Amino acid sequence: MRANDPLLQSWVAIPPESDFPIQNLPFGIFQPGSARPRVGVAIGDYVVDCQFLAENGFFADLDLDLRVFGQGFLNDFIEQGREKTRAVRDRLSVLLDRQDTRWNAEQHAAQFLLLRESVSMLLPVRIGDYTDFYSSIEHATNVGAMMRDPNNALLPNWRHLPVAYHGRASSIVVSGTPIHRPKGQILPEGSDQPILSDTKMLDFELEMGYIVGKNSNLGQTIPVNAAEDYIFGLVLFNDWSARDIQRWEYIPLGPFLGKNFGSTISPWVVTLDAMEPFRVESPIQEPSVLPYLAYSGQKSFDIQLSVTVQTKDLAQKTVCQSNFRYMYWNIAQQIAHHTINGCNLRIGDLCASGTLSGPYQESFGSLLEITWRGTKPIQFADGTERKFLEDGDTVILKGYAANGQVRIGFGEASGTISAIHEYNIDN
Amino acid sequence: MRANDPLLQSWVAIPPESDFPIQNLPFGIFQPGSARPRVGVAIGDYVVDCQFLAENGFFADLDLDLRVFGQGFLNDFIEQGREKTRAVRDRLSVLLDRQDTRWNAEQHAAQFLLLRESVSMLLPVRIGDYTDFYSSIEHATNVGAMMRDPNNALLPNWRHLPVAYHGRASSIVVSGTPIHRPKGQILPEGSDQPILSDTKMLDFELEMGYIVGKNSNLGQTIPVNAAEDYIFGLVLFNDWSARDIQRWEYIPLGPFLGKNFGSTISPWVVTLDAMEPFRVESPIQEPSVLPYLAYSGQKSFDIQLSVTVQTKDLAQKTVCQSNFRYMYWNIAQQIAHHTINGCNLRIGDLCASGTLSGPYQESFGSLLEITWRGTKPIQFADGTERKFLEDGDTVILKGYAANGQVRIGFGEASGTISAIHEYNIDN
Repeated sequence: MRANDPLLQSWVAIPPESDFPIQNLPFGIFQPGSARPRVGVAIGDYVVDCQFLAENGFFADLDLDLRVFGQGFLNDFIEQGREKTRAVRDRLSVLLDRQDTRWNAEQHAAQFLLLRESVSMLLPVRIGDYTDFYSSIEHATNVGAMMRDPNNALLPNWRHLPVAYHGRASSIVVSGTPIHRPKGQILPEGSDQPILSDTKMLDFELEMGYIVGKNSNLGQTIPVNAAEDYIFGLVLFNDWSARDIQRWEYIPLGPFLGKNFGSTISPWVVTLDAMEPFRVESPIQEPSVLPYLAYSGQKSFDIQLSVTVQTKDLAQKTVCQSNFRYMYWNIAQQIAHHTINGCNLRIGDLCASGTLSGPYQESFGSLLEITWRGTKPIQFADGTERKFLEDGDTVILKGYAANGQVRIGFGEASGTISAIHEYNIDN
Repeated sequence: MRANDPLLQSWVAIPPESDFPIQNLPFGIFQPGSARPRVGVAIGDYVVDCQFLAENGFFADLDLDLRVFGQGFLNDFIEQGREKTRAVRDRLSVLLDRQDTRWNAEQHAAQFLLLRESVSMLLPVRIGDYTDFYSSIEHATNVGAMMRDPNNALLPNWRHLPVAYHGRASSIVVSGTPIHRPKGQILPEGSDQPILSDTKMLDFELEMGYIVGKNSNLGQTIPVNAAEDYIFGLVLFNDWSARDIQRWEYIPLGPFLGKNFGSTISPWVVTLDAMEPFRVESPIQEPSVLPYLAYSGQKSFDIQLSVTVQTKDLAQKTVCQSNFRYMYWNIAQQIAHHTINGCNLRIGDLCASGTLSGPYQESFGSLLEITWRGTKPIQFADGTERKFLEDGDTVILKGYAANGQVRIGFGEASGTISAIHEYNIDN
């Protein structure tokens, strides 16, 4: 792909450490002022208005349905297929290239480049179904040790299949949307009578998500080595969790109200194409997996991840540094498993990784693990402590891949905790 | 409501025991030949073409957006609000009334009445999220006794909250759609090494579902006594289950591939309005529930349900007779619980009851329970036996409410099991 060339430089000034060099070109949906939402691409501190470019002929030779750029979600754009979405990204890399003046785009820059600060970012896709995996062996081991038995922390199925469950699509919100503190049934310590209470154990979960880029049919299984054809791109994902609600409700059918009050997604979908230079081996799997999960090639990606918590007094601390490559079950295996029974995928579906904990305490991806269920509070420089999140706290997920030549970032997925009563409208 | 008047008689001939008298008037989406899908209403053996009626002025005075009748899903129709959808049902009850000739509809009947046999019924709603409850105490007790401990069959949380989990929306299909036999990981008896296999324990689950009729906001909780305002109507629902796949995968995060290969919904949505005459008390709840789940009035419905299995040799047996009223947690409690944490509902969301087992073996709602995990096979008159479903078997769910004056039926939710390889397209 032309767009991945590490030597490319844009005529748009790219600040050092920017997440959005010309080699990234992630897609999102933005709204300029009160105009209609449309497809945009991030570059440096700017967003490219793809609808404007489409209307003015910059994509005229690409055999696209140009209406897809004026939609409120990326679904129709993605549905054009990988060949065409790739052609758009490549065309943008020409338009933004300092060396390439065929299109003379710089001259029109004021018309199609908007400061990102000046626009609103919206949810990038209409999410049909949302599936959350549980694919970090460190996270599953930590939780198993804490909740069940330290000597048998991993359940018998865990190394044989990528455990997953269905989550709530309606409550997935874009970065910046406030997250209300949920109330629900919790079982007070030592009691057998549940009470209704605001959660006292509000947590984040550091995850990455990927957006399905191609429909499959009911009854169709997707082979593991074809699975990436069904993935459009990656996002950051915070699977907010209320541990006390979750703990009381989750046996035997899994998490429900402990999770479905809100999840936060980053607005820019980084294409799988842009991640090509960052492929790495996945962790070795022991015992070996069944043939339908056995893949060839490098299916993991080296993506540095971090979580920063900021209190309402602006005390700030990076509480987790992890990596997407720690994930035991890679995304190809997840898709192969998800469809082995014929379950159909639809464009815009979101699959998330599960909490991406690494092997060290500094790489644990949730407060549950970092504070070991509240027994080791986090200390901020101003003396503030946190066992779990308090109202006014902001959690910021960030991620980037870098190889010395280019640095491809994901922007951020952030959310601030609000007390629930601010959001009660009807009662 | 005018439409519920038990004395109404239609000029359309209604066969005895029809599910669709003039007092029912359920909504669905149908496709006449190759014409575009549209909204229809069932009456006797016919479907009323609501789009035709709308185009020809029969709803002109009702202040409706008439485009909603020409859609491929009921969502936009439902979004008009209860007052307007109720007015449409009432208007249809005038048009179809033998005594009421204001509109002279009978004269134009050939233009807007189509034999139901002659049209295709489609999925009635675009389902955003699908939630499956677990609200039958008999089912939960049976499964708990079988899978865990007969002396502690119900888990500690069960009597305190309506347990639920999120299911897959993409694989919900309309009655008549074949269901492929899923393959997946199963753990052979006595082994600790899973294998990949077609399921050997394919089962149905007799459920009812309801369609959300009003949006709620993130952060909003719906009070239990307002919950029915958020329900448009009811359907039959078969939550097909592969017990061997489910059993190996479901701890700790709940069912996934054991269920998401397909679920069957009946095409006609019977409005909650039409169910008014059939309200009954819900089962007594002990211990008493938390205040947010304490309701007033009658929130359950007396709906007779049955499941018939037909083999490919056409041997037929009704294997279950149950009732919606057995459900321990009623639909108002389910909605109140679902939103207590601020989770938002959207028009078209589907909530299902969970398997509706009654207190006797003949009322158990799944083969798992009826055959007690395969130990008591079902006997057909031709000598055929079934522990679980075989390829070519058809499962037919039916339901109706009757009070001596009127009989309101749900049509059916049926599906035939196909071997998986018939459906593999890509590989």
